[in-house]
Amino acid sequence: MSAQPLTDFSRLAVHTFTTKPWNLAQACDNYAAAGIPGITVWRNVIEELGAEAAGSLIRKSGLEVAALCRGGFFPAFSAADRQKAIDDNKLAIDQAAAIGAPMVVLVCGAVVGMPLPEARKQVTDGIAACLDHARAAGVKLAIEPLHPMYAADRSAVNTMGQARAICEALQDPLVGIALDVYHVWWDEALSEEIRLAGEQNTLFAFHVCDWRPDTRHLLTDRGLMGEGCIDIKGIRAAVEAAGFNGWNEVEIFSEAHWAKDQRQWLSEIKQAYLNYV
Amino acid sequence: MSAQPLTDFSRLAVHTFTTKPWNLAQACDNYAAAGIPGITVWRNVIEELGAEAAGSLIRKSGLEVAALCRGGFFPAFSAADRQKAIDDNKLAIDQAAAIGAPMVVLVCGAVVGMPLPEARKQVTDGIAACLDHARAAGVKLAIEPLHPMYAADRSAVNTMGQARAICEALQDPLVGIALDVYHVWWDEALSEEIRLAGEQNTLFAFHVCDWRPDTRHLLTDRGLMGEGCIDIKGIRAAVEAAGFNGWNEVEIFSEAHWAKDQRQWLSEIKQAYLNYV
Repeated sequence: MSAQPLTDFSRLAVHTFTTKPWNLAQACDNYAAAGIPGITVWRNVIEELGAEAAGSLIRKSGLEVAALCRGGFFPAFSAADRQKAIDDNKLAIDQAAAIGAPMVVLVCGAVVGMPLPEARKQVTDGIAACLDHARAAGVKLAIEPLHPMYAADRSAVNTMGQARAICEALQDPLVGIALDVYHVWWDEALSEEIRLAGEQNTLFAFHVCDWRPDTRHLLTDRGLMGEGCIDIKGIRAAVEAAGFNGWNEVEIFSEAHWAKDQRQWLSEIKQAYLNYV
Repeated sequence: MSAQPLTDFSRLAVHTFTTKPWNLAQACDNYAAAGIPGITVWRNVIEELGAEAAGSLIRKSGLEVAALCRGGFFPAFSAADRQKAIDDNKLAIDQAAAIGAPMVVLVCGAVVGMPLPEARKQVTDGIAACLDHARAAGVKLAIEPLHPMYAADRSAVNTMGQARAICEALQDPLVGIALDVYHVWWDEALSEEIRLAGEQNTLFAFHVCDWRPDTRHLLTDRGLMGEGCIDIKGIRAAVEAAGFNGWNEVEIFSEAHWAKDQRQWLSEIKQAYLNYV
């Protein structure tokens, strides 16, 4: 299965972390100047300004906000720490509302020493505890399954199937899934899970990058689309066949690419977007 | 579920790669002197001697060979390259027989640009092509599912379930599974797959080490048992409940630990074995 080729940038959104050297103003200016219509905002770039000022800066730029990254990190050994996490997620929901983000992406969390099934239960409970707040703010929550190499301390939700199980447990139209090809490309259940997510209206977001065969670092060595082994076109075809027509978000953490001139990097992203997404 | 504590070293085998700075003679001498009865031999340490001389060196040491590591790497784009892989696996089988190894552990292989299901089909065909040779030599073949972070170019077999599917397709008592906790600890199907492997008599080998939460390198930063997040005792209890009573093999690739005095390292391994396996 292959997708219709992308011929313009109308569905392209870039994560601020993809151009980490830029602050929010620089990101907005440069994305807009490059004809990129969408931005996914990481919380680090709104910290210095505050969410209100960040929101007005983004609105002035004309960019649309695809999402706020990131909430989550729900599991903890003490009830007090779990409550802290819930409070922080409510803050993220408020920040999302302030900048016009339709959703908060959740990196669900995991704790060394806690069995993964217990962590997933605490994730489910944590999301449940945020739902009234999310509803009042009109902000959705997108569970991002993370690659199993992050199961120790970043997320106990490592497959689309596990994300679906949480969606099914919560049964709330505000709760869905952010599919990042980096995390799930290897999973033999991927096609079927995309189909199910389409059926259940839980496919909220689609993130692209690539998996470098000789990955040098577990966090900051993602590839630009085309630099690795992921069949991104095939996965895009599947998500579109499942009814997804939202942003194609480029989320790349890469020391190698951050070391470049970021305008050059942005133009490489645009070219790779047309060629490999 | 927790296993009966280990109180002696009667089931301990160490992989030669765990003490990479040592050649085969040094490994044999030091393991034997430390009261470690089992050795798993990597092919790099028999290359300089040849398999016959390596075999007689090991027999003189009194060590028992748990396995030869490693065969596999079956998938390739050309028929000629696939045949080369089969020939190399037959050579590994001969080497295993020469050193008294009851099995060859298979890192099955993957190729950038080849869909994973196709790679798994080629793995199945490759193993099938080696079966007569393995039968004649009396050597078993143990499929080692590798962590999904190796799916790009090391193995398209990334779960116990996928390894089981190959065993079920081949239906040969010579074909089974090498379970390494490092690769499969995160999988929610693990307990059930261990149970099934027990039922199907395919649980051939059990490898231990640990997953460091802040893993610095994808290949050479494994933890000593106790340094990470894996519930090794729980997994050992499950494999023993499934009928496994073979070696507990310590396989640790770690630049940090290789940098130590290797006798000191071996004594740390023995202590961690009693405390955390």
